[in-house]
Amino acid sequence: MDKIVECVPNFSEGRRKNVVDEIVEAMLLPGVKLFDREMDADHNRSVITLAGEPSAIEEAAFRGIAVAARLIDLDVHRGEHPRIGATDVVPFVPINGVTMDDCVAMARRLGERVARELDIPVYLYERAATRPERRDLAYIRRGEYETLKNEIATNADRAPDFGPSRLGKAGATVIGARPFLVAYNVNLATSDLQIAKDIARVVREKGGGLKSVKANGFMLRERNIAQVSMNLTDFNITGMLTAFETVKAEAEKRGVQVLESELIGLVPLEALTQLTAQALKLPSLNANQVVEMKIYGE
Amino acid sequence: MDKIVECVPNFSEGRRKNVVDEIVEAMLLPGVKLFDREMDADHNRSVITLAGEPSAIEEAAFRGIAVAARLIDLDVHRGEHPRIGATDVVPFVPINGVTMDDCVAMARRLGERVARELDIPVYLYERAATRPERRDLAYIRRGEYETLKNEIATNADRAPDFGPSRLGKAGATVIGARPFLVAYNVNLATSDLQIAKDIARVVREKGGGLKSVKANGFMLRERNIAQVSMNLTDFNITGMLTAFETVKAEAEKRGVQVLESELIGLVPLEALTQLTAQALKLPSLNANQVVEMKIYGE
Repeated sequence: MDKIVECVPNFSEGRRKNVVDEIVEAMLLPGVKLFDREMDADHNRSVITLAGEPSAIEEAAFRGIAVAARLIDLDVHRGEHPRIGATDVVPFVPINGVTMDDCVAMARRLGERVARELDIPVYLYERAATRPERRDLAYIRRGEYETLKNEIATNADRAPDFGPSRLGKAGATVIGARPFLVAYNVNLATSDLQIAKDIARVVREKGGGLKSVKANGFMLRERNIAQVSMNLTDFNITGMLTAFETVKAEAEKRGVQVLESELIGLVPLEALTQLTAQALKLPSLNANQVVEMKIYGE
Repeated sequence: MDKIVECVPNFSEGRRKNVVDEIVEAMLLPGVKLFDREMDADHNRSVITLAGEPSAIEEAAFRGIAVAARLIDLDVHRGEHPRIGATDVVPFVPINGVTMDDCVAMARRLGERVARELDIPVYLYERAATRPERRDLAYIRRGEYETLKNEIATNADRAPDFGPSRLGKAGATVIGARPFLVAYNVNLATSDLQIAKDIARVVREKGGGLKSVKANGFMLRERNIAQVSMNLTDFNITGMLTAFETVKAEAEKRGVQVLESELIGLVPLEALTQLTAQALKLPSLNANQVVEMKIYGE
């Protein structure tokens, strides 16, 4: 089985299409596939989703960071989304044949190189963090570029993991490794938003619910139904089946049926093999038992 | 997404390894992967599992049939397994990006070619059958090679779909198309074989149970537990989740718990996406939403 890593770099440019084009083009190396490309003008930010062979993905990330540093100036950047750098955050995500430790090693190697070759301060986050508080992206990014610019040289707590303790116009970049994020929603047969909000509160980790689950209640205005919208930040801890069944049980307690669920975007095959193993009480099921993977992945 | 077809030719040779080697070698064309190769000396039969690009698989099947016709003589073949030909049966199985109709067309094209170039009578079976009774392999194979040899010229009911109404030493070959067969077992927390047999009888299609399910009760002697062993002959009609939950409910009616289930061999990705969609009430989930397939399959 070939190795696959996903990378989702976030760039602080969501308005100038030619700038985003140039960044994306620089990243499209052999062995790299572009899965998604989202530009948001209000946030003034782009989120690029790449996946492919690990060394190609690592090189692609470096090239994207280099181009962004040349084309984006944080001193003039304005947008609603918090950011500290031209390339704001770069997570590596293990998909297949690659461990979390491999992705942590990629993050550290890339961070060191970005600092050395581009003179950009780098913070390691999530599973690559070197301090517990830096697992949290929001903590690293507090006060954004403008505050960090003042504090980086004087506040030891803000010393980067790699690179200089000063910010140029490219700002600083946060690099790390994390599990695949599954965006998963359950739609309820009710127009009562409060029920979805109550269920979300019970289900999410912060409320003492399911580990590695973030949840919120929303209305789907067009259909006039309430939705429990979840992010499963580690499907090996809480997968879609447990999330679904927990929401369903909570809804039934409140006299509400589940209409259906929806998966936003992609999932790794492992999310399906894990779900199948759980649903069927199979001791294990792996990608090599899937015909297509025997064809493509060897 | 590339197209994938599986082919599982059965050859009437399970003792002479060099013969099976030569057949397999002839089939290993570019675009063809060998998944499995089983030789059974008592049955005097080999089952070869190939998968890959449809036109390569079709050519591989032809070459295997040609080599088997040259090396296997049914007049001297003895074995426990019923057979009518050197190449006894050749099913095509749609895996990905290919319909059942595509596989039926492959079967007919191959059958016509085998008859024309190798002068071997061919019967079409399962989804490729031209008469309802020929859907059933056992019906076509009744009396085996020895009976067919006498009846083929005189009994209109035994006229082949392609080729001569006489048998040479290579016999006749049955070619067709069928869905992927999922071999799936559920192990029970009981040493009472009768419970597994009773559940099997209730669950199988013949007993008015689940459509496209064959089932039997067995003992796993080493563990001293009973097993409901199933073949799901069309997982789009009855998939693993329905099979599991039905067996579990029947076991619980009898006061018995399910220990675990087991999947024998491979499954197509579609069996997992279908199961996931069913378990989560997802309106649909397809192979293109799986990260690995976006990498490998495009």
